[in-house]
Amino acid sequence: MIYMDNGATSYPKPPEVAETLIDAMANYCANPGRSGHFMAARTAHEIYKTRLAIAYLFHIDDAGQIIFTKNCTEGLNIALQGILKEGDHVITSSMEHNSVVRPLHMLKAKGVDTHFVQCDASGCIDPAKIKEAINDKTRMIVITAASNVTGTKMPLAEIGRIALRNGILFLVDAAQGAGHMDLDVKKNHIDILAAPGHKGLLGPQGTGFLYIRKGIETTPLMMGGTGSYSDQAQQPADFPEGYEAGTVNAPGIIALGAAIRMINKIGVDVIEEYERRLTEKLQKGLESIPQVVLYGPQDTHEKTAVIAMNIADLDCEEVAGILNDSYGIAVRAGFHCSGMAHKTIGTENRGCVRICPGFYTGEKDIESVIAAVKRIAAEDAR
Amino acid sequence: MIYMDNGATSYPKPPEVAETLIDAMANYCANPGRSGHFMAARTAHEIYKTRLAIAYLFHIDDAGQIIFTKNCTEGLNIALQGILKEGDHVITSSMEHNSVVRPLHMLKAKGVDTHFVQCDASGCIDPAKIKEAINDKTRMIVITAASNVTGTKMPLAEIGRIALRNGILFLVDAAQGAGHMDLDVKKNHIDILAAPGHKGLLGPQGTGFLYIRKGIETTPLMMGGTGSYSDQAQQPADFPEGYEAGTVNAPGIIALGAAIRMINKIGVDVIEEYERRLTEKLQKGLESIPQVVLYGPQDTHEKTAVIAMNIADLDCEEVAGILNDSYGIAVRAGFHCSGMAHKTIGTENRGCVRICPGFYTGEKDIESVIAAVKRIAAEDAR
Repeated sequence: MIYMDNGATSYPKPPEVAETLIDAMANYCANPGRSGHFMAARTAHEIYKTRLAIAYLFHIDDAGQIIFTKNCTEGLNIALQGILKEGDHVITSSMEHNSVVRPLHMLKAKGVDTHFVQCDASGCIDPAKIKEAINDKTRMIVITAASNVTGTKMPLAEIGRIALRNGILFLVDAAQGAGHMDLDVKKNHIDILAAPGHKGLLGPQGTGFLYIRKGIETTPLMMGGTGSYSDQAQQPADFPEGYEAGTVNAPGIIALGAAIRMINKIGVDVIEEYERRLTEKLQKGLESIPQVVLYGPQDTHEKTAVIAMNIADLDCEEVAGILNDSYGIAVRAGFHCSGMAHKTIGTENRGCVRICPGFYTGEKDIESVIAAVKRIAAEDAR
Repeated sequence: MIYMDNGATSYPKPPEVAETLIDAMANYCANPGRSGHFMAARTAHEIYKTRLAIAYLFHIDDAGQIIFTKNCTEGLNIALQGILKEGDHVITSSMEHNSVVRPLHMLKAKGVDTHFVQCDASGCIDPAKIKEAINDKTRMIVITAASNVTGTKMPLAEIGRIALRNGILFLVDAAQGAGHMDLDVKKNHIDILAAPGHKGLLGPQGTGFLYIRKGIETTPLMMGGTGSYSDQAQQPADFPEGYEAGTVNAPGIIALGAAIRMINKIGVDVIEEYERRLTEKLQKGLESIPQVVLYGPQDTHEKTAVIAMNIADLDCEEVAGILNDSYGIAVRAGFHCSGMAHKTIGTENRGCVRICPGFYTGEKDIESVIAAVKRIAAEDAR
């Protein structure tokens, strides 16, 4: 298959991911932070190395503030449900994924008020509108680093400055950003960052993390064994273990570390530029097909490796079906768990086809996709 | 190493676990339930096979009622936080793990009242005491299948009948029971069952599940993308996807399926008897050492493969340290995230050494452990 669904999960993974995972499982993987024996200690050490790799990539000073989660959604839920209280006001955008929209919707019933800043038809946000929406109850700004529908990059540094100047927490959903673009938490004034391990970070599914800047008070979402204060019925608030109740996905986290160390070695800016060129080639190729409608920014510098498109009046699921069945090309059609984003770009009634190249996509793959879309469009026009 | 820490996580895993995991990651693992392409469909199909394997093992009629979680703790939190409401009364035991004790402690602040039935010094519970504790607010009985400190098996069928007759929900924490004993949800009248994938079920860490009988109303703990009703801000209540927001640990779940299919082939009763014999041999061997103090039931039919012990007045951490450093034996000392259980068995001030044989433990390993404890005890006595 020509895999163009990297926005859902990256495939394939770097060889060192499977190697590290198998090595851990075969040779030492015990329960970290519980027992004191060699295997448990080695497991804890390897997990710590992943924390350090994450800290390096995102310019996080204190690796102990990184909580491992099963996916990005868990991180976002800990941050939103754990920090926001009755009476709080939150500002977010109309391009957010349901992993932000749905927790905020639930929090409405608990007295948390959300303001959705309307983005333009390309998914771009005007930071001035965020500034205008601030009131004396505003506790947090939550923004995706890049849209999962159109790839639109958000002006994080600018939004971060607004948050900083107004004493508001800045939470970034890095589901589509992590591993695809530079996400320096200091430069962008990011207080809280949630990311999946299995997308741009090239790790296995079942991994993710949440960084919370030191000093921000958070209530854990889950309570349970932490390997500490066993006689205490109250969940400990210590970072990170108070937020990692139960056994963590040790082999997954260790394998994620191998992937991130590879990214750190290559440089995320190099990956970003490589993926941008692929996206540029794909976008130019699709633009040349008259029946193709493209959504999102035209300038590939303003987006990650995500192409959102439709072909004339063809049903997007049908197009994805033909790409799969006749061309062996894997894409994702529909609404991408982001109904609000589709409304913003005007596709709330039809959805779109999302084509996401990735780290292992080659130029030839891009050419195949363009050729396939061209044929589908031509056959439809007949 | 001689690995005797299977109560924390099982090691090694069956070869098919790593093989299945690597095959999934290398050959097809995409994001299930999102896209429609071959790889996503294959991933969804393989995950469904794991649901079926779980359903078979636990005699669950509707595999769609099985929610995948990252560990047992997540399952317990979904069940406790999602079902219990202000004014509810819960009955549990004094042998519970912090994964039950801590969520219940937190729920106290939300108006959920918990009654802890005192177990005897072996960790055994008298079901009559549960019956006595029932009042008209009692919504749920929560009991571990077997104690993680002493291995004490709880009389689930009897407790299940009490729950059934009184119209009370019965939640079983199968952290130490799943894969080690028959846990037929029908025979035991279990309404809700939480289990880890990485202990007795021999799957990878980062996996677990929660079964909730059809018709029981539950609020999801996390909200986010479900691959369904994308335009809806409200989290869907559909089973299982409404409770599995975000990307699941697909390769882990698929590999867990391989492990459970192996267990189903062998028969959990065969495994139970094999582990009981190992435990019997270990218990008899340790009983013959005068300085050894053993906790929990004497009859190995009344417990899973867990031995809790101390050597004279020796510090348990020191004993575990010597076992590791001088004998290459991995055990877990301390309080095992169960302060209340240690209070019940009278070790709240010193903890104990926990020795857990498992599926891959051999008779020779047991002999090595007995010989090592004998020498440590003799050296201490000199």
